[in-house]
Amino acid sequence: MSLPISFISDFGRDDEFVGVVHGVIARIAPEIKVIDIGHEFDQGDIRAGSLSLMRAIQYLPQGVALAVIDPGVGTKRKAIAARTEWGVLIGPDNGLLAPAVAMVGGADKIVSIENPELQLPAPGSTFHGRDLFGPAAAVIASGQATLEELGPEVDPDSVMPMMLPLVEHGKQSVTGEVLWVDHFGNAQLNVTPDDLKLVGISQGTSIVLKIHTSEFPIEWVEAYGDVVDGEGLLHIDSYGQIAVAVRDGSAVASYPLDNGTAVTLRSGTPTLQIRSS
Amino acid sequence: MSLPISFISDFGRDDEFVGVVHGVIARIAPEIKVIDIGHEFDQGDIRAGSLSLMRAIQYLPQGVALAVIDPGVGTKRKAIAARTEWGVLIGPDNGLLAPAVAMVGGADKIVSIENPELQLPAPGSTFHGRDLFGPAAAVIASGQATLEELGPEVDPDSVMPMMLPLVEHGKQSVTGEVLWVDHFGNAQLNVTPDDLKLVGISQGTSIVLKIHTSEFPIEWVEAYGDVVDGEGLLHIDSYGQIAVAVRDGSAVASYPLDNGTAVTLRSGTPTLQIRSS
Amino acid sequence: MSLPISFISDFGRDDEFVGVVHGVIARIAPEIKVIDIGHEFDQGDIRAGSLSLMRAIQYLPQGVALAVIDPGVGTKRKAIAARTEWGVLIGPDNGLLAPAVAMVGGADKIVSIENPELQLPAPGSTFHGRDLFGPAAAVIASGQATLEELGPEVDPDSVMPMMLPLVEHGKQSVTGEVLWVDHFGNAQLNVTPDDLKLVGISQGTSIVLKIHTSEFPIEWVEAYGDVVDGEGLLHIDSYGQIAVAVRDGSAVASYPLDNGTAVTLRSGTPTLQIRSS
Repeated sequence: MSLPISFISDFGRDDEFVGVVHGVIARIAPEIKVIDIGHEFDQGDIRAGSLSLMRAIQYLPQGVALAVIDPGVGTKRKAIAARTEWGVLIGPDNGLLAPAVAMVGGADKIVSIENPELQLPAPGSTFHGRDLFGPAAAVIASGQATLEELGPEVDPDSVMPMMLPLVEHGKQSVTGEVLWVDHFGNAQLNVTPDDLKLVGISQGTSIVLKIHTSEFPIEWVEAYGDVVDGEGLLHIDSYGQIAVAVRDGSAVASYPLDNGTAVTLRSGTPTLQIRSS
Repeated sequence: MSLPISFISDFGRDDEFVGVVHGVIARIAPEIKVIDIGHEFDQGDIRAGSLSLMRAIQYLPQGVALAVIDPGVGTKRKAIAARTEWGVLIGPDNGLLAPAVAMVGGADKIVSIENPELQLPAPGSTFHGRDLFGPAAAVIASGQATLEELGPEVDPDSVMPMMLPLVEHGKQSVTGEVLWVDHFGNAQLNVTPDDLKLVGISQGTSIVLKIHTSEFPIEWVEAYGDVVDGEGLLHIDSYGQIAVAVRDGSAVASYPLDNGTAVTLRSGTPTLQIRSS
Repeated sequence: MSLPISFISDFGRDDEFVGVVHGVIARIAPEIKVIDIGHEFDQGDIRAGSLSLMRAIQYLPQGVALAVIDPGVGTKRKAIAARTEWGVLIGPDNGLLAPAVAMVGGADKIVSIENPELQLPAPGSTFHGRDLFGPAAAVIASGQATLEELGPEVDPDSVMPMMLPLVEHGKQSVTGEVLWVDHFGNAQLNVTPDDLKLVGISQGTSIVLKIHTSEFPIEWVEAYGDVVDGEGLLHIDSYGQIAVAVRDGSAVASYPLDNGTAVTLRSGTPTLQIRSS
């Protein structure tokens, strides 16, 4: 029986790119189920796609993940397939797969996809999603080819990692950054509940959220319902990370936050600030 | 055999939310077909989602409707499953399901979804689409659980209704409002053909469309082809409601109309108006 | 066994239109796989949709193509089904299907879809995607009806063609136009590699790209990697056409190009231009 393919890309939905990849897969193996995870990432935003796939993977049915955010298409970067306990992840060797591979326990084998017999002939430039990655995903998911038939094994140490920002622990503070702003304006940090506990911050204590030079009082609560409408809060989000949110509102509308913004969290109340406006 | 799930939400397509719910369903019951009805509603717009589901439901295959527009997530609102002749509708108890339930003849049983064994463990805040509503839809659609196993029955009278605006009938006029502006700029009213006939308005008579203090002459026609390009018209739309449209154009670009705008329709010609501009 | 349906429209994703058509198909034949090719074309942009379907079709599984970009809905235009070696293409008779039909070798039979027994009853205006085209696609894909049962045969010469712009060959130049600007800002021309070779332009020679009165030096290269970041290039794109692209950038941001813009390509270097700015 065929395994499902979960598909993520930056192809957008304006053109037929996503549909054509679905079509190519269906021509190779009509019975395969393809689940679209997301195709609206900013063009070439490898980090955003890699984090999305990392968050999603444990909720996706075991099988094949097909990921194509590939600003280096047409250069020498490799195309890879990584075998894990979850299944096989397929995409460009640019770090896109790395966080998801790590999330499911690492890869026991990585190959470079090179077998020309498993690719579609292209009339001009290769559209790798259509001609190379899609077919590779389809033959692996349907069992028409083994990982080894895709191409030669590569050294895991030669594969591009994804550098994710580390949290800095101060004496009484934690400095991290915004990993992801979701559709609702919630700002997920790279900070975990344990990071906060390590510096003595717990639910119910007064906390200061420092963004650039501004300080905001904020509370770490259990749920949105613990604050009033329009008020900001810290909580453990649905992926287990600390996030800044606003009840019935948007954290990025209420605070000067965006992807990659550095934030510091510490116990206490904001320092008196004289603001000129 | 498993029943299909029709899925509607305000999750948007920027993030992996929709794909993750598909993934969760596929992990529970790989054979289920999931049909996406719409995920681009304004954040928390329960009314728009409820009307969309109401319009759609009679065209959807009998089975399960999974609806998640849930600004009250994290508060005390209940999660419910309503059994109807069409199938089972699952979503938050905030009025979202009510118009669709009424459209298919009402519910003979409503339960509160509470069984923790049928939910996914969440590392932090519950993402109810992923952890609660999606799994409930999957176990019902696949027959892995009965409605009764989801949780205790609730009194239908305790369930949140959706208040839809009523039409006011004058002596020779009808006052209603815009229920929905579609992708093409057509403005569907809460007015039916019978409402117009009750006050003596029929196809072919001269009609006045009054919006705020402005009056526009308009004709009730059978089809777009009955007026010239760029001209406005009233017609019975594809859902049987009276709608304001413009041939090869957009009603909301040609008239001061938007969701919720009040409009009055009466026989006759516009009153002489002196406009300063 | 049922054949898959590939579905293209200008319905957008804001409303339930696309989902309702999926629903109608699933009610008629639950086992049919529906592949979404694209639904975000500009409202009524028949040319863009026809080109997209033409590019896609050879990558789609043989079966049924359902195409609904239909600004003439509600007028006298016919609804047609065209049988080809690839399968059956279904849509309005407005040129939308023509390029794809030609791409797969032409139609051996075209019928006008008129059989009322194969349509859904509409409470008001017909929503043709839902009431007529969707059901026709479903009964053909599932084998519940033959092409002949949809309606009477029509003369292929009476069917609306799609006029695509021709390339003009000068002595040492080719003049064409932009057919398509994709999601990444690449501008596909109606010019083929053979058009360039005919006028003595080959890979590696200096080329002038003339847009309106501006001339730009540009090179015809094999791949993005052959130029530096931010630099423009001509290449044979993944569909075999000549396209203007920019490595790690957007051709339409770097050059004054858009859909339909006329461009001339010739060997040589730009004429000296004095610009005031």
